[in-house]
Amino acid sequence: MQARSPVEWPMLSEFDLIKRYFRRARTGNAVLGIGDDCALLAPSPGMQTAISTDLLVEGRHFFAGADARMLGHKSLAVNLSDLAAMGAKPVAFTLALSLPGADPEWLEAFSTGMFALADLHDCELIGGDTTRGPLAICITVFGEIAPGHALRRDAARAGHDLWISGTLGDARLALAGYWKEIALDPEVLALAAPRMHQPTPRVELGRALSALPIGHAALDISDGLVGDLQHILDASKVGATLDVDALPAGPALAGQALALRRRFTLAGGDDYELCFTAPASQRDAVIAAAGSANTPVTRVGTIDAQPGLRFVDAAGKALEMDVQGWDHFSGE
Amino acid sequence: MQARSPVEWPMLSEFDLIKRYFRRARTGNAVLGIGDDCALLAPSPGMQTAISTDLLVEGRHFFAGADARMLGHKSLAVNLSDLAAMGAKPVAFTLALSLPGADPEWLEAFSTGMFALADLHDCELIGGDTTRGPLAICITVFGEIAPGHALRRDAARAGHDLWISGTLGDARLALAGYWKEIALDPEVLALAAPRMHQPTPRVELGRALSALPIGHAALDISDGLVGDLQHILDASKVGATLDVDALPAGPALAGQALALRRRFTLAGGDDYELCFTAPASQRDAVIAAAGSANTPVTRVGTIDAQPGLRFVDAAGKALEMDVQGWDHFSGE
Repeated sequence: MQARSPVEWPMLSEFDLIKRYFRRARTGNAVLGIGDDCALLAPSPGMQTAISTDLLVEGRHFFAGADARMLGHKSLAVNLSDLAAMGAKPVAFTLALSLPGADPEWLEAFSTGMFALADLHDCELIGGDTTRGPLAICITVFGEIAPGHALRRDAARAGHDLWISGTLGDARLALAGYWKEIALDPEVLALAAPRMHQPTPRVELGRALSALPIGHAALDISDGLVGDLQHILDASKVGATLDVDALPAGPALAGQALALRRRFTLAGGDDYELCFTAPASQRDAVIAAAGSANTPVTRVGTIDAQPGLRFVDAAGKALEMDVQGWDHFSGE
Repeated sequence: MQARSPVEWPMLSEFDLIKRYFRRARTGNAVLGIGDDCALLAPSPGMQTAISTDLLVEGRHFFAGADARMLGHKSLAVNLSDLAAMGAKPVAFTLALSLPGADPEWLEAFSTGMFALADLHDCELIGGDTTRGPLAICITVFGEIAPGHALRRDAARAGHDLWISGTLGDARLALAGYWKEIALDPEVLALAAPRMHQPTPRVELGRALSALPIGHAALDISDGLVGDLQHILDASKVGATLDVDALPAGPALAGQALALRRRFTLAGGDDYELCFTAPASQRDAVIAAAGSANTPVTRVGTIDAQPGLRFVDAAGKALEMDVQGWDHFSGE
């Protein structure tokens, strides 16, 4: 699966390296795994293939010198999170790696973190590519979903409840600590940090929701709730009212001041929770699905026919939230 | 399909950029294309999915400042070449792009080159990811193939003929010209250069070979014939005898001295021709398949039970070829 051109310095140990760290006993998901021009998958009869790709670049998606084991986990987790948001069952993935050099310790740790998560979801590494270059990781992930059961962004309807899995904001709080935007107690940072480094893709919840008979809209929150929710509103041509004080803050963020709680739950980033909608008549079914997936869910608002996003507090009073300003702030 | 973490500076125009250059009228291959957490493919009943991924990094796989239109072509071509080597029919691809900035001229040219080739093969862009970072392109490509028809590296058998599509060495000759390893007439460089910048994936030939009733081994030659052929020999646990003077040199290389012709046909790079094997009884069938694919093929040797790779000249006389030394040379 090489695409090496003569411009490239040969990574002399490339084949040994692949064998040593990335070739494993086969789990049997694929007809043909690593080692040929292509991998071969035999899709289950009647099922559709869900596909997502993410490119993570050092200094942009993760700090230079990031812990390789956690990075291996996170690189796959953000892709599995996309499958979760579609309701698909993970099957396989490919890995393209650009590495400044072949550091055995780094490769050992990276592959260990990646495969620990892959094994948890029976997701097989079926192929890839390695090259020397700036550290970058491109994973493409494949899942299966029954026709008509995908959780699409265009399926939100006026009157639907708006739901969030898990908690929001701790990853953003950890980043604020690292960046020294705010002074964080070391214990608070230690509590928040795993949410930034080792997100949990909500695969079981996505699958449980997609198995429900009624269509739901869903996506995974990677860039902050407000920005990501807007994609559902745009695709479904609806609006929403968000109960800002119902948003479940992560355990570290929960101890911070109200203004920060609101800001980091609404416009954090790296949450990798699911945001989804469901008819109000389906509340019990949603709660049962979440229970079967062992994943907490919280109802945080409603979908409206009126376009735009409105904010209310616990008392139902309208709030003005300058989310645009936060986006700017968090980005610069 | 984002995986942006808060470490990332938001690429403010990312969504506009995707819409403008990469979102197109649907060709209908996918159930769901760009714009959700995952794309959805509905595999044809009974068919297997062939998957390959390649990561191209600036300064390694292409020169800094490379022509964007040709780069768009080449990025997809090297992936389609992997489908060709498997005998699969192209269906769709994903594109992950790391860009130093959003340069409209570059994006326009890159997408034009990429889509021109994609359209030729009815291969639909179904999803992707964009980020700021060092220029890098990761494409993952999906094709369809009937079970048992894939051209696998482990299918070579003693007594098989060894075949090559098209011609070899012109891409390497162009590189030698750019690098000033050798002094090339401008007309010779102009003749050779398209083979380096705009390779032709042998999709039709691969599909025609995979439709033949008898199993064949195949791969695409990206790192030089000798090195790549070794993968077939290893996977099939066989050896080979190569008629060095039967190797078809490209039109530019054909005018060079014998020693250079031999070296660049045997250990060039970026050829993206198919190297394949077939029983001697299938010669007419292979030639008919190549004719139907409008692709020249040349018989260049035989597969042997004895391990290792042997070289002979036109008279059948054994040749000593220090290919290892060339590899070293071309790589450093």
